[in-house]
Amino acid sequence: MTKHLRQELDNLKKEIFGIASMVENAINKALLAVVDRRQELADEVIREDDDIDGREVQIEEECLKVLALHQPVAVDLRFIVTVLKVNNDLERMGDLAVNIAERAAFLSAQPQLEATVDLPAMADRVRAMVRDSLDALTNMDTRLAWKVIAMDDEIDDTNRKMFNVFQELMCADRANIERSVQLLSVSRHLERIADLATNISEDVIYMVEGELVRHRTEDLQKKWRA
Amino acid sequence: MTKHLRQELDNLKKEIFGIASMVENAINKALLAVVDRRQELADEVIREDDDIDGREVQIEEECLKVLALHQPVAVDLRFIVTVLKVNNDLERMGDLAVNIAERAAFLSAQPQLEATVDLPAMADRVRAMVRDSLDALTNMDTRLAWKVIAMDDEIDDTNRKMFNVFQELMCADRANIERSVQLLSVSRHLERIADLATNISEDVIYMVEGELVRHRTEDLQKKWRA
Repeated sequence: MTKHLRQELDNLKKEIFGIASMVENAINKALLAVVDRRQELADEVIREDDDIDGREVQIEEECLKVLALHQPVAVDLRFIVTVLKVNNDLERMGDLAVNIAERAAFLSAQPQLEATVDLPAMADRVRAMVRDSLDALTNMDTRLAWKVIAMDDEIDDTNRKMFNVFQELMCADRANIERSVQLLSVSRHLERIADLATNISEDVIYMVEGELVRHRTEDLQKKWRA
Repeated sequence: MTKHLRQELDNLKKEIFGIASMVENAINKALLAVVDRRQELADEVIREDDDIDGREVQIEEECLKVLALHQPVAVDLRFIVTVLKVNNDLERMGDLAVNIAERAAFLSAQPQLEATVDLPAMADRVRAMVRDSLDALTNMDTRLAWKVIAMDDEIDDTNRKMFNVFQELMCADRANIERSVQLLSVSRHLERIADLATNISEDVIYMVEGELVRHRTEDLQKKWRA
């Protein structure tokens, strides 16, 4: 590999960590906005999403440039394709943070819904998954990536339980309906962020081990449940 | 371009149309399962998703092989990156069809919810968007791609209206709550399929015109709404 290509790849790595930390920050703020009912944090997340979008476009253009100029093969090619995909997943996570922030903006103007719903605990777990998937990427740590994949099932279960809890709340008192629908959205957006952290983890494993783990893990899970 | 590369690219094109028609079929069946309450169609969609997953993995491996062996540049490179992205979007559409089918399986076992909700009309529009985005890809038709992008705003509006309609239904009678929550999920999954059709259309424009339209259209929409 030429010294020039090495520099370009190092640069791409820095860029992807840069957008990752912007997205992580957006998710954290959006969740704080919901849990602590802080409208001003929700506004920040919505306002700052343009920066994430701009960064994604820039990284994709950079990847195409490196592909065209250096025509990398083998592990370098795989790295760039992984960056393209992770970049896309991160931008989608940013959009979900905006969706959560929009719910937070609505909810913080309403009286708090008294409930036994443990949304903060779910948020903590999803935040840990995002963190771990990005650490797995930084350190090429497949053990950590597998841990994230294992956690995803748990989050799916929690999301399903949320459905039941909110359904009961709505049945108990129609005054709960509007807020329950909004909080259900938050739970669902969290579940999708967890899915994207799982995608990133699968891409890390693919990059390191050269196997397409996607769907293979789904098959394993299906067998496990059957 | 070598004759061999030309053949590989033609082959990729065929592959992507193949998976596209499988996904379109899954979406159509899932929607029919909801609208006509046909459990057996829902079961088919769920069963056949493994084939779509397998096809996605195969196409991605094919793309990597062509990139490594032929080191294409310019328009050919852009074509392969577009195939990688559209392939990913199509697989996600397939997953959403499964989600809709799972709701259909639940709903078809319940009495029909009498309502003024026009889910079939929304389903028709989303189906048209999927169809048009794939036609835009087949014919490199940017005019059609822009049409899809314009329709996406309409679907977002419809989804927001669905929220209100179902909220009222739930408030009117708590017996409506469970089915309303499920139907709201269908509406939301439809909206996400429309988003993915929009992504594909943006990629088509990018491939033809070499511009990254993503986010640029979002900006235009934001200005329009402001």
